[in-house]
Amino acid sequence: MASKLTSRDEDYSQWYNEIVQRADLAENSGVRGCMVIKPYGYAIWEKMQAELDRMFKDTGHVNAYFPLFIPKSYFSKEASHVEGFAKECAVITHYRLKNNEDGTGVEVDPEAKLEEELIVRPTSETIIWDTYRKWIQSYRDLPILVNQWANVVRWEMRTRLFLRTAEFLWQEGHTAHATKQEAIKETEQMIDIYSSFAQQFMAMPVIKGLKSENERFAGAEETYCIEALMQDGKALQAGTSHFLGQNFSKAFDVKFANKEGKQEYVWASSWGVSTRLMGALIMTHSDDHGLVLPPKLAPFQVVIVPIYKSEEQLNNVSIVADKVKKALEKKGVTVKFDNRDTHKPGWKFAEYELKGVPVRLALGSRDLENSTIEIARRDTLEKEICQIKGIENKVIELLEDIQESLYKKALDFRNQRTFVAESKEEFKKLIEKGGFVYAHWDGTAETEQLIKQETKATIRCIPLDIEYESGICLFSGGHSEKRVLFAKAY
Amino acid sequence: MASKLTSRDEDYSQWYNEIVQRADLAENSGVRGCMVIKPYGYAIWEKMQAELDRMFKDTGHVNAYFPLFIPKSYFSKEASHVEGFAKECAVITHYRLKNNEDGTGVEVDPEAKLEEELIVRPTSETIIWDTYRKWIQSYRDLPILVNQWANVVRWEMRTRLFLRTAEFLWQEGHTAHATKQEAIKETEQMIDIYSSFAQQFMAMPVIKGLKSENERFAGAEETYCIEALMQDGKALQAGTSHFLGQNFSKAFDVKFANKEGKQEYVWASSWGVSTRLMGALIMTHSDDHGLVLPPKLAPFQVVIVPIYKSEEQLNNVSIVADKVKKALEKKGVTVKFDNRDTHKPGWKFAEYELKGVPVRLALGSRDLENSTIEIARRDTLEKEICQIKGIENKVIELLEDIQESLYKKALDFRNQRTFVAESKEEFKKLIEKGGFVYAHWDGTAETEQLIKQETKATIRCIPLDIEYESGICLFSGGHSEKRVLFAKAY
Repeated sequence: MASKLTSRDEDYSQWYNEIVQRADLAENSGVRGCMVIKPYGYAIWEKMQAELDRMFKDTGHVNAYFPLFIPKSYFSKEASHVEGFAKECAVITHYRLKNNEDGTGVEVDPEAKLEEELIVRPTSETIIWDTYRKWIQSYRDLPILVNQWANVVRWEMRTRLFLRTAEFLWQEGHTAHATKQEAIKETEQMIDIYSSFAQQFMAMPVIKGLKSENERFAGAEETYCIEALMQDGKALQAGTSHFLGQNFSKAFDVKFANKEGKQEYVWASSWGVSTRLMGALIMTHSDDHGLVLPPKLAPFQVVIVPIYKSEEQLNNVSIVADKVKKALEKKGVTVKFDNRDTHKPGWKFAEYELKGVPVRLALGSRDLENSTIEIARRDTLEKEICQIKGIENKVIELLEDIQESLYKKALDFRNQRTFVAESKEEFKKLIEKGGFVYAHWDGTAETEQLIKQETKATIRCIPLDIEYESGICLFSGGHSEKRVLFAKAY
Repeated sequence: MASKLTSRDEDYSQWYNEIVQRADLAENSGVRGCMVIKPYGYAIWEKMQAELDRMFKDTGHVNAYFPLFIPKSYFSKEASHVEGFAKECAVITHYRLKNNEDGTGVEVDPEAKLEEELIVRPTSETIIWDTYRKWIQSYRDLPILVNQWANVVRWEMRTRLFLRTAEFLWQEGHTAHATKQEAIKETEQMIDIYSSFAQQFMAMPVIKGLKSENERFAGAEETYCIEALMQDGKALQAGTSHFLGQNFSKAFDVKFANKEGKQEYVWASSWGVSTRLMGALIMTHSDDHGLVLPPKLAPFQVVIVPIYKSEEQLNNVSIVADKVKKALEKKGVTVKFDNRDTHKPGWKFAEYELKGVPVRLALGSRDLENSTIEIARRDTLEKEICQIKGIENKVIELLEDIQESLYKKALDFRNQRTFVAESKEEFKKLIEKGGFVYAHWDGTAETEQLIKQETKATIRCIPLDIEYESGICLFSGGHSEKRVLFAKAY
């Protein structure tokens, strides 16, 4: 192994970058702002995809696929959407290259200019609602509950692996309904699904809430979100679900005949999570030794490392290791037996610590004599010598314990870093310290903007579980109806 | 249901288009050459993906993700690759739009011009080998066995749903090896996997072979392919696997230190199948009544249609239908119970026939009295009244029989339409008739070109199982070493 990681205290941002790269999760590519997701990182994303896809299908959704490109004019059809999405984007203007005259390469063929430029989708509401017009005639065609797994591009100027990249992978659900009520119910159902996924699989506590008007999705009537707190005290928006009202059905003229035969505009929702969740996962649990993965999302939950001096010893250890592996796999545990002869046990220990494998088993010749095995958990780094007999049950208990402990630890951290501010000064001090801060706000975009300028904090959400409570806005002194959640954010 | 399908005899091409659209597989979008894959079509693609992904992983491959965009200059690094791929492509020249002056929409911001244009990937060898340079230092880093599921874009002038679209979905494997032998073995392994998949899951017989130099992948030393025969007698290339030699490692300077510490260029393969397989699947089995799906790739294998007049009858039928559904699901069969009250049984029968559902069960009040159920198979359209007791075993046998029968039928068709031509005249007549034609060829690109001009037939492949047999080229009269496989092709 190379040198130690930069610690969180030393340089949090550097610590994050080093984990992403040294744990083989992702790296920058030769294309500005676009990342390469490496096999180990992609395997975690595949686990996330599989669970989310199952949750979507269990609630009646189906997958489909819509074009990567969107004609420029589509964006102009929904007024606020164009402001939000059609600005920093990848624009296709030509469809052909030709050999350049000096024979050194290729250049754009000026004769192959598109009549109308195409935009690489930053999100697909426009092209999908243009399609839904053809799919929807009657109430019988509703609801449409479609999801798409896709890549999208937003031309970000400052990028960070997983957290903010020009191209990223995501899923985007786009649903169409006969009634407002049904569309809102769908929007709420999906934020609940995201919340369950974050908590049960990512072991990441989240707060559900509504975005303020300023932070709302461009084209939405209401945006629901889940917000998580990272170890540096900054918030991260982990998923959003939008109630779109009839904005897109009106922009794309999508009507249906109701049961009485009357034409009505369709109601809509859209919702998405992206590879940004990878960033959230990394920052929620990892430590100064490297990545820490919740067992439910680990590409392999257990690694077995053999300790040996001779080939004969390796052979003997392998026989037992294979048995342990099979016994674990039979119980549904994923296991890697790393019997590579090109690396020493110490190197492997450090490598799997860096890669966050939840449980490590080490097995040597002395263990064979004693019928024992060393079992180490990644989250606490605790080690223990156990009897091999029954090890599979021990491992399963341990994996469950790690999954729960990680959630609890993250929740404890969040609780310790969640504050209530009663004055402007206190607010500023707490925001500076880092964490979630509940505070009264007068509900205006102006004050929100002012707070952002003065403190760099934004309203993360208006939490769903907050009750009405009359108060005074800390910044404007105006009337406030409830406390909302502030933080500096990614 | 609307009107009947156009028959294959009447207009094969129209028949294909109608099936794709009326079976809800895909449709054209508002973007030239780009398709929308509809939920039912996408569900078939997901089944294909799941099987292929399992086959890839069982042979040691892992998934990763590389950027959508490729800097223009990358294409110029491999001389033949640029000719093949960097010509008809989507070119990104700008990264921002702005409001136009009259306020009616958005326009490209001339100030946001990219220094170097980006190409939307038509295939990813260049960006991936640019990345592998960073991943490979020593023989310990090899082999790299990576696959990517992705969208790609090739600016086709004449497009057809699934068969040839500007954007399509595919997987592309890109492997790196220490030796030539190992890379060739990998290339051959992957064409074997494609062949197994086509035959076992798609029930589509294929011929494995090598491409002639003319038809080889731009940048490959050797291209292996699988070729299938469609019902109109035209061939369809269903998958390719390329031995790339050291072409890309040399172009991107990817070397490794071998065990002796000497620097060597890495050996490579790449291989892919795409949503084009959907077109192949449709054209292999479907008939004048609509789509016919092999059970192993059907989104649902069985549909149960209730026959009833009153709500009470529906309730009684539903109780039994639910039991049958559960019994089938317990055995791993996927079932849809269509109890929609908005459509009549006759409409549903026609709908599922059009959509190719392998087995249809119909259940009415009289069946309840007699403990019977009607069972219909889509491939032969045969119907039978059976006892409900034990129906699940009957259905499983039937599904297996349908899977096998479809393969056998397609193989019989191919055998009937596979010919050997002994003279130029015979060759022309057979090609005109439609089908695979084995013929002697002198091995030159010139003759191949001449044959294409005179007959529109191309060399589909030099089959792997063909033995050496001295002969005379039908067109040039030159010496031939073996017969190769000709056909007109998609």
